[in-house]
Amino acid sequence: MQKSKNIKLSLNLDNRSYPILIEPGSINGEALRHLVMQSGSGNCVIITDHHLYEIYADWLKTLKVIVVKAGESSKDMSVYESVLERMVKFGISRTGAIIAFGGGVIGDLAGFVAATYMRGIDFYQIPTSLLAMVDSSIGGKVAINLSGGKNLVGTFYQPKAVLIDPTLLNTLDKRQWANGMGEVLKYAIGFNSAFFEEISKYTLTDIMNDHEILLSIITTCCKIKIELVEKDEKDMGIRNLLNFGHTVGHAIEAHYNYEKYLHGEAIAIGIAIKAKIAFEYGQIDGNELKQILDAIRQYELPVSLNERIIKDEAQHLLSYIIQDKKRQVEAIEWITIKKIGEVESKLEKNESIIEKISKELLRI
Amino acid sequence: MQKSKNIKLSLNLDNRSYPILIEPGSINGEALRHLVMQSGSGNCVIITDHHLYEIYADWLKTLKVIVVKAGESSKDMSVYESVLERMVKFGISRTGAIIAFGGGVIGDLAGFVAATYMRGIDFYQIPTSLLAMVDSSIGGKVAINLSGGKNLVGTFYQPKAVLIDPTLLNTLDKRQWANGMGEVLKYAIGFNSAFFEEISKYTLTDIMNDHEILLSIITTCCKIKIELVEKDEKDMGIRNLLNFGHTVGHAIEAHYNYEKYLHGEAIAIGIAIKAKIAFEYGQIDGNELKQILDAIRQYELPVSLNERIIKDEAQHLLSYIIQDKKRQVEAIEWITIKKIGEVESKLEKNESIIEKISKELLRI
Repeated sequence: MQKSKNIKLSLNLDNRSYPILIEPGSINGEALRHLVMQSGSGNCVIITDHHLYEIYADWLKTLKVIVVKAGESSKDMSVYESVLERMVKFGISRTGAIIAFGGGVIGDLAGFVAATYMRGIDFYQIPTSLLAMVDSSIGGKVAINLSGGKNLVGTFYQPKAVLIDPTLLNTLDKRQWANGMGEVLKYAIGFNSAFFEEISKYTLTDIMNDHEILLSIITTCCKIKIELVEKDEKDMGIRNLLNFGHTVGHAIEAHYNYEKYLHGEAIAIGIAIKAKIAFEYGQIDGNELKQILDAIRQYELPVSLNERIIKDEAQHLLSYIIQDKKRQVEAIEWITIKKIGEVESKLEKNESIIEKISKELLRI
Repeated sequence: MQKSKNIKLSLNLDNRSYPILIEPGSINGEALRHLVMQSGSGNCVIITDHHLYEIYADWLKTLKVIVVKAGESSKDMSVYESVLERMVKFGISRTGAIIAFGGGVIGDLAGFVAATYMRGIDFYQIPTSLLAMVDSSIGGKVAINLSGGKNLVGTFYQPKAVLIDPTLLNTLDKRQWANGMGEVLKYAIGFNSAFFEEISKYTLTDIMNDHEILLSIITTCCKIKIELVEKDEKDMGIRNLLNFGHTVGHAIEAHYNYEKYLHGEAIAIGIAIKAKIAFEYGQIDGNELKQILDAIRQYELPVSLNERIIKDEAQHLLSYIIQDKKRQVEAIEWITIKKIGEVESKLEKNESIIEKISKELLRI
């Protein structure tokens, strides 16, 4: 029975292929030590945040660990430089490795360090948040932020393996579970109607308590992501569909200085706005809109901003959309809902998009 | 006749292949504007240093240009961040491009910016120094420095094209010409005995004044580099031979804080030390040693440190060798001269190497 719970997926990209192992209970102090040893004695470092270091001190204290502050502020140039300098002090060589042990911030930062330290060393993703397990740990997008915007400095750099142990989620609080469900809803609403039907049956509490359901959700999300990354590793076409809800989401995060809304919360609002626009323009009907908004609410995520905003604020928020890195010069690649389980990419004039989103932002 | 002076080489790496064009007189204000326009209006930026900006102000002043301080100090994390921030302010998008207009420092810095800005945008190398034309502009090694060592942060990122116009060298002073000859001598002594025979016939003044000779030298160096990069893009094996003379050279540069010796000067000393050791251990005879040292001197480059150093200083200098990024744990991959025109890679114990170099450093 235990055996059947171990799922082995693989992401195939020629010589950059790697396994994605979903195995409850697989990560512990022994497993980490074993992984560290694979890179040769003393030549592997674990990068994590101070919050996780407190929780997992017993596993980590005997290993080489670089600890950064928890939160988005660590995806910063000065933290990046400081981590690199600590790698040098630890004596990590070209044949060394990094283990990213954490959520999306740690994976992005540690992955970018791995991609650029001595022109690239091996790295392993061990995601500790639901959001990282279903999305950010897979696919090799690594980056840090500039003052001018999120993820503006980075590269595509695939890990050697992604090791997912859902039991690590036990320490998460409810808001962090919901945060991860923001990305899960993206996969369901955007890419797979049967999956949407399945998760519509559950609530956040169900996911948190039923390991079978959780395992199934993580596996489905990984499979969807794998398929798109295999088709378009460098995000030149179809992979961009995974940004469904993200253009608006990033703008919300930036407008509130990455403090008020978690990533998954901002994405949820982004998806809800897309759904409302799709309804407005006749792409989906009222019943479908209701199903989408209900599902978002079921997972204790917002379907609109938590407060009424005035027009000036909306303008400021929307200015981030134009600055978003996915922009073309006069038009934005704009991902819309075709029906539940299917999104499509459209190139639409900036003004037209801004007008549509503005209307929804101000409506509440 | 003019036609025959244009040489088109290509570096073949599947979908990362690119042309290397060696064309006297090809680069001017018009050519730069034309290249900029290829990336769409306003979506291309030229990165150069303040020294070059003064010389080429007429060509550059109407274009988007990011100017950094001339010299190794610009391969720094704070300059890297500042260039990235200026890219955002210029509104350069994912479909934009960078033109690296300068020597090795500019190529390395601008290339690393191109590799990581929005996860990678196009870039073109227009080398303006002999050293960059024969070596650093080709092969996609881009990097910046950490306080812990040179080129410790970077990646492999191939340009879209390398555009070499030898007439740009007319503004260089004699020391900079000699600097470039340091790498030329590496190719000749390490990889091609006929080429060594050819350049042994000339002096630095000949190279500076005879465009036919210069063109032939640049072309031969590019061909040697292309062959090795095509065989081993990621520097996992044979490409490392190009580091001939560089382990000692980097240590000399670092010991003197990148101020006293130019890269090519330090490499020349590195090569001379290797030649002396090769003679000491019977790999080459006295006549070959003399030929090598004569050739280095002919191009007004040093064959030993310019001053006598004491043992403590030598120890400090040698400590950089152990820190050098190409080290293994207890042994260094050590490139030795087999005969004129051929080097080989050996894995040798740190202490043994240090002892050999130390002896030569202190001998003078």
